[in-house]
Amino acid sequence: MTDAQFRKRYNSLRKTIDVRARALARTGPPDSLHDGCRYVLESGGKRIRSILLALSCEAVGGNLRASLDAGVAIETFHNFTLVHDDIMDNSHLRRGQPTVHARWNVNTALLVGDVLLSQAYESLLRTPSPDPIALALLMTEALRVVCEGQALDMEFEQRTEVTSADYFRMIEKKTGRLISVSTELGAVIGGGTPKQVRALRTFGHHLGKAFQLQDDLLDVIATEKVLGKPVGGDIAEGKKTYLLLTAADRTRGGDHTIINQVLRRHIPQGKAGRQKVVAAVSEIYRNYGIIEDTAHRIHRETQRAVRALDLLPESNARAMLRWLAGALVHRTS
Amino acid sequence: MTDAQFRKRYNSLRKTIDVRARALARTGPPDSLHDGCRYVLESGGKRIRSILLALSCEAVGGNLRASLDAGVAIETFHNFTLVHDDIMDNSHLRRGQPTVHARWNVNTALLVGDVLLSQAYESLLRTPSPDPIALALLMTEALRVVCEGQALDMEFEQRTEVTSADYFRMIEKKTGRLISVSTELGAVIGGGTPKQVRALRTFGHHLGKAFQLQDDLLDVIATEKVLGKPVGGDIAEGKKTYLLLTAADRTRGGDHTIINQVLRRHIPQGKAGRQKVVAAVSEIYRNYGIIEDTAHRIHRETQRAVRALDLLPESNARAMLRWLAGALVHRTS
Repeated sequence: MTDAQFRKRYNSLRKTIDVRARALARTGPPDSLHDGCRYVLESGGKRIRSILLALSCEAVGGNLRASLDAGVAIETFHNFTLVHDDIMDNSHLRRGQPTVHARWNVNTALLVGDVLLSQAYESLLRTPSPDPIALALLMTEALRVVCEGQALDMEFEQRTEVTSADYFRMIEKKTGRLISVSTELGAVIGGGTPKQVRALRTFGHHLGKAFQLQDDLLDVIATEKVLGKPVGGDIAEGKKTYLLLTAADRTRGGDHTIINQVLRRHIPQGKAGRQKVVAAVSEIYRNYGIIEDTAHRIHRETQRAVRALDLLPESNARAMLRWLAGALVHRTS
Repeated sequence: MTDAQFRKRYNSLRKTIDVRARALARTGPPDSLHDGCRYVLESGGKRIRSILLALSCEAVGGNLRASLDAGVAIETFHNFTLVHDDIMDNSHLRRGQPTVHARWNVNTALLVGDVLLSQAYESLLRTPSPDPIALALLMTEALRVVCEGQALDMEFEQRTEVTSADYFRMIEKKTGRLISVSTELGAVIGGGTPKQVRALRTFGHHLGKAFQLQDDLLDVIATEKVLGKPVGGDIAEGKKTYLLLTAADRTRGGDHTIINQVLRRHIPQGKAGRQKVVAAVSEIYRNYGIIEDTAHRIHRETQRAVRALDLLPESNARAMLRWLAGALVHRTS
């Protein structure tokens, strides 16, 4: 299949997920609650996790259609984490739209998150499977792990001593597990052998790492136009990304002082001051080879992900998983 | 069995649930998250829902031990709702102890609630059952309904026109469904016939109503010593209880003005002013027969609950469910 064909199939799968996610929405009463849920369920997004799940199902010889309810479940689960994370981070914009708590209020957003989680289980439990409990247990474990990741991330904000090893443990839970549970669920639903299930979980694991590193990198190397928000946002917030933590390790002297100020979130409040810090830190990243190093790690994790697919039989789905892994780490937003 | 024997068995079941709930707790990292979860899992409480679930299982001829994991699940689910509700209501005390967000912070409490929900599913999914999906679907539906009830309750705070019919629709969701899903789950796990499952759900439905009405009534007729908090708290907050809404319907003239002020939460801030309002409203409740009317409704709902049990075969478990229904509506705190 050509790149254009892959892209076409991706968009078609995305539309299928969009339609099914919308179908989960209910009408009130209570209106505020169900309006909030519908707002999220219809908000779109790339639907990466559900498409990974569907392709994983097909790659082990399963019927892709049997995996769609689980795919919608994972998207809805993902949205639940976003709604609660946005409350915790006090973020007011998501995909260019007001977040739920910004548009309604914190209490409604809290409940919208809880209801989205019930809708995620509702969708998952519809999946035809000889072992439905295994599926529910996987999502339940992922729920705990993702919360642990978010709690670690919040703990990092209070700590100055965070290593890049801590960082990888955190993103493995916060971002990685939701991606690896998607590929794992797809493999289980598709009736994969234990070896195939492990292979697809490994694929998701490395892809999740690459995906988060790419997210960190884009904050520095993308353009505002493509990113849809000002570049350097992570720097301006003193977010402990892989780049910042690596810079803390590598720099000395005046550069180290700059990085340390950002780590401690001693960042000027004005726009001009912030831009100056973003420019200085970006230059440090460039001068110390941290941009290249991050790009290299992304490449390595993607290779590891793709190598795990070698354990699966040759198929269109496997080829598309490979294509998707490449597309995700070459994305520009 | 005598009252003392029932009480003894109740306490023994309660201890069993306490031990199993504690066993769900994990250790960190992240410490704050798992410490918060353990704090809640070890906080005790009456364990009413899990004991209703266990007795319902036994009352249809099931093995009570098979229902314990589901009982712990329902308690953990109940605690999840309390942790999130306490955030929304900004309550600082629960069972005489600081709430999770008061002891840690709102973000941690939000995540503790989410993890408790995952632990509820984890425990439920361990239940041996020929139809585990049915169990998971029941808890999933209850999750949505309880959130709808909480959202309605929050909507009521913003509205002045709330009828007692609105009130019953709200408590049926917010309090009632968690109780009726407990008895229903017990009946399903015990292998009850569809008729028996319906009977136990009906039992839980009416018991839940009686339970909430008793809660509303205790706020007015209990003593501070027994209640563990000042009486009249609902009045002082302008909470739309059955008593307040009935008073709004029945009163005229000056009494109506007083009730209307409370409904609109025009309540003096000082302690003396609050006590005066609580005393005036309590007197109105007495003068208009609202205390008696509420007690009568509690009695009627309890009778309906107990009558539903007639569809079950005679057994110790059925006798104890009857006893428990009586004990719950004669409780003083």
